[in-house]
Amino acid sequence: MITTLIRDFSKQVGQTVMVQGWVYNIRSSGKITFLQIRDGSGFTQAIVNQASVDPTTWQTATQLTIESSLTLAGTVSQHPKKQEYELQVTAITPIQLATAEFPIGKKEHGPDFLLEKRHLWLRSQSQWAVLRLRHFVKTGFQDYFNNQGYIELDTPTFTPTSCEGTSDLFEVEYFDRKAYLTQNGQLYLEAMCMAFGKVYDLCPNFRAEKSKTRKHLTEFWSLNPEIAFIDHEASLKIQEAAIKHMLEYVLQHARAELALLQRDLTDLQDTMAKPIVHYQYAEAIVELQKRGSSIQFGEDLGADDEVLLTADSTVPVIVKNWPRSIKPFYMKGYPYINKTADHDLVLNADVLAPRGFGEIIGGSQREDDYETLLAAMQAARLPLKDFDWYLELRKFGSVPHCGFGIGIERMTRWVAGVHHIRETIPFPRMINRITP
Amino acid sequence: MITTLIRDFSKQVGQTVMVQGWVYNIRSSGKITFLQIRDGSGFTQAIVNQASVDPTTWQTATQLTIESSLTLAGTVSQHPKKQEYELQVTAITPIQLATAEFPIGKKEHGPDFLLEKRHLWLRSQSQWAVLRLRHFVKTGFQDYFNNQGYIELDTPTFTPTSCEGTSDLFEVEYFDRKAYLTQNGQLYLEAMCMAFGKVYDLCPNFRAEKSKTRKHLTEFWSLNPEIAFIDHEASLKIQEAAIKHMLEYVLQHARAELALLQRDLTDLQDTMAKPIVHYQYAEAIVELQKRGSSIQFGEDLGADDEVLLTADSTVPVIVKNWPRSIKPFYMKGYPYINKTADHDLVLNADVLAPRGFGEIIGGSQREDDYETLLAAMQAARLPLKDFDWYLELRKFGSVPHCGFGIGIERMTRWVAGVHHIRETIPFPRMINRITP
Repeated sequence: MITTLIRDFSKQVGQTVMVQGWVYNIRSSGKITFLQIRDGSGFTQAIVNQASVDPTTWQTATQLTIESSLTLAGTVSQHPKKQEYELQVTAITPIQLATAEFPIGKKEHGPDFLLEKRHLWLRSQSQWAVLRLRHFVKTGFQDYFNNQGYIELDTPTFTPTSCEGTSDLFEVEYFDRKAYLTQNGQLYLEAMCMAFGKVYDLCPNFRAEKSKTRKHLTEFWSLNPEIAFIDHEASLKIQEAAIKHMLEYVLQHARAELALLQRDLTDLQDTMAKPIVHYQYAEAIVELQKRGSSIQFGEDLGADDEVLLTADSTVPVIVKNWPRSIKPFYMKGYPYINKTADHDLVLNADVLAPRGFGEIIGGSQREDDYETLLAAMQAARLPLKDFDWYLELRKFGSVPHCGFGIGIERMTRWVAGVHHIRETIPFPRMINRITP
Repeated sequence: MITTLIRDFSKQVGQTVMVQGWVYNIRSSGKITFLQIRDGSGFTQAIVNQASVDPTTWQTATQLTIESSLTLAGTVSQHPKKQEYELQVTAITPIQLATAEFPIGKKEHGPDFLLEKRHLWLRSQSQWAVLRLRHFVKTGFQDYFNNQGYIELDTPTFTPTSCEGTSDLFEVEYFDRKAYLTQNGQLYLEAMCMAFGKVYDLCPNFRAEKSKTRKHLTEFWSLNPEIAFIDHEASLKIQEAAIKHMLEYVLQHARAELALLQRDLTDLQDTMAKPIVHYQYAEAIVELQKRGSSIQFGEDLGADDEVLLTADSTVPVIVKNWPRSIKPFYMKGYPYINKTADHDLVLNADVLAPRGFGEIIGGSQREDDYETLLAAMQAARLPLKDFDWYLELRKFGSVPHCGFGIGIERMTRWVAGVHHIRETIPFPRMINRITP
């Protein structure tokens, strides 16, 4: 008898197998007990028929409780009508019988209760599916970048200063001094792309934001590529290719998970097949005003604007070349000859997911000229001596280079089609949540 | 003319190509200038022959400085005697001429200076090779676990309590409370393996250790698999298979990097081909005493002991089943019937690298019985209410499970054969080092 996984049942119809797992639900109809079983790889129905098992096995079946662990032996069969597989049970060996009532039942629970029970909530079908999708989103992107010759090089968590200003930083006692948790490893990645050409990091970033929206976590993961010798438009092409590859990878590996979440695949498939839509920032403002927004040139897009711009789109929307006044110091200027308030733009872009799912990538071409960068840092009143090393990169073989950040949770939220970002990370950390 | 990478020169002999990169050294012999070029993908020699280029190109070549960035056009040729490829230059376009002297020269620099210039030191051949190896070590392990159906699920950085006691923790101001930076995500992984079967995390861990040895970092990366339904010996087999797979992957992708570091491949190849050596802890103590150590039963192996036990070995050495008294609370007991001081052991193991490179993996079977675990936690005087959720995992379908932690920097140190761990992470963080 082979020990197998539920995920492999389709290849084992008619075979006698052994499965180890947990009971996630029980239904009985007199002489038949239907056990809903999960084993980490998938979910199945195990059928115990009193007429075809010995009395001890039948008794064991009737004594099982929700979330008990067990070993099952039986024959794999295909459901007569559906593309589903079941186990016709011949023997049951309990591993541990759960004697207490499983806290997560069929009734509706509030989000706080579920987050407090996150260690058990993870076992539910929807959470299982979302977090498996997260895995394939991550590995799909890694697959793309690794195949293209990128080197993953982690940026440090402990930093002496901040990349984007000192607000929203978490402070740590670091022996006899202060350190800050990284908000973004970009400056380090710029140093590394000058040594390795194409690099990325994939690590947690931290933001002590007091936002309580469904899009904010204090600890979130991002994958940040940084590439030497390319310009902004080339970077946007890479972003588009990476998204398409990731989606192909996810659809190849996790169709069952998408089906379980009842994800409508239209926008994922359209995104693979069609070009991404590009708006100049200035065009986006005009379009938003047409659609009823009160946004003015020079303002950041609000969450409502993001929805307004993408709700009808089945492919991501790029908004590029924003006013310098609302962007950080390190972005390279858009090459207009005459700067005016309307024309002092930078070579950056946000990628917005279709259907109002919001920003999934943000990136820019970096300023590579020493004098221009120095002036921008002085204008931003940054403590220059902390950035000596960063400026030095422009003294020794500065080259055009671009980078962007892929928000893993935001991307997973879109791919999975779930409402709240807290479901896209195993143990979410928010302003009021640090347990379990 | 195609734009190419130095890494691909072997496929382009005789072709006219364009390469973008940096000058890392210059040598001149009158009418020929030899430019040592790096482009992130590799290193090559570019030959500018005054007789075969126009006067402007020749003048440009003679004005280049170390770490200037440039675009080169030329023909790829194979070195007459070696398996090396060169570029016969026809045109040079400088991107940025480095006007200052590159701080890292040929003379010996102290480690502090090099760490302060880490953003530039990364460009040196040895650092480039070590960190590329790090990438392939990581992706080699990920390749193994992903192919085996594991799901990567990140554990949180912010934790309300400590897994292994509160010493050596970094404390963070988390809004109106304190949080601690994770030392290890094991407890969370245990929760997740009950939902997903086979999981791992790959993330930074933190330890506020005041150790200044060449094996300690305050921020280090580890890959931690956790697997439901297996016992300790099965876990050791997985560890061995994972190491072998990673080494095959590294040798497939990074032979040039190993050659550049002049890494003797004997122990890497032996480790792929031969079984790993197993010692019971008690046997290891006897063996160490034979070899001259003063270690006694009940003591932890010191760094010297690790060297003594592995210096002559070309394969890793496992030391397993240690006394409970020197191990954390969560390890499952070794199934002896009569416990004595000599026999109260746990199902754990350290994997030591060959040739004295020290511990590369540590793992154990976890206690899965509620009452036994509760007693162990009480004996360790842990604040039980902080671990309610962890204990709850033993109430709802507890199963045998094991996990282990692969230290990415320690593994890379062994694979690369470098002395100090600070060279195995892009921007090392140590007690006295948090910049750049």
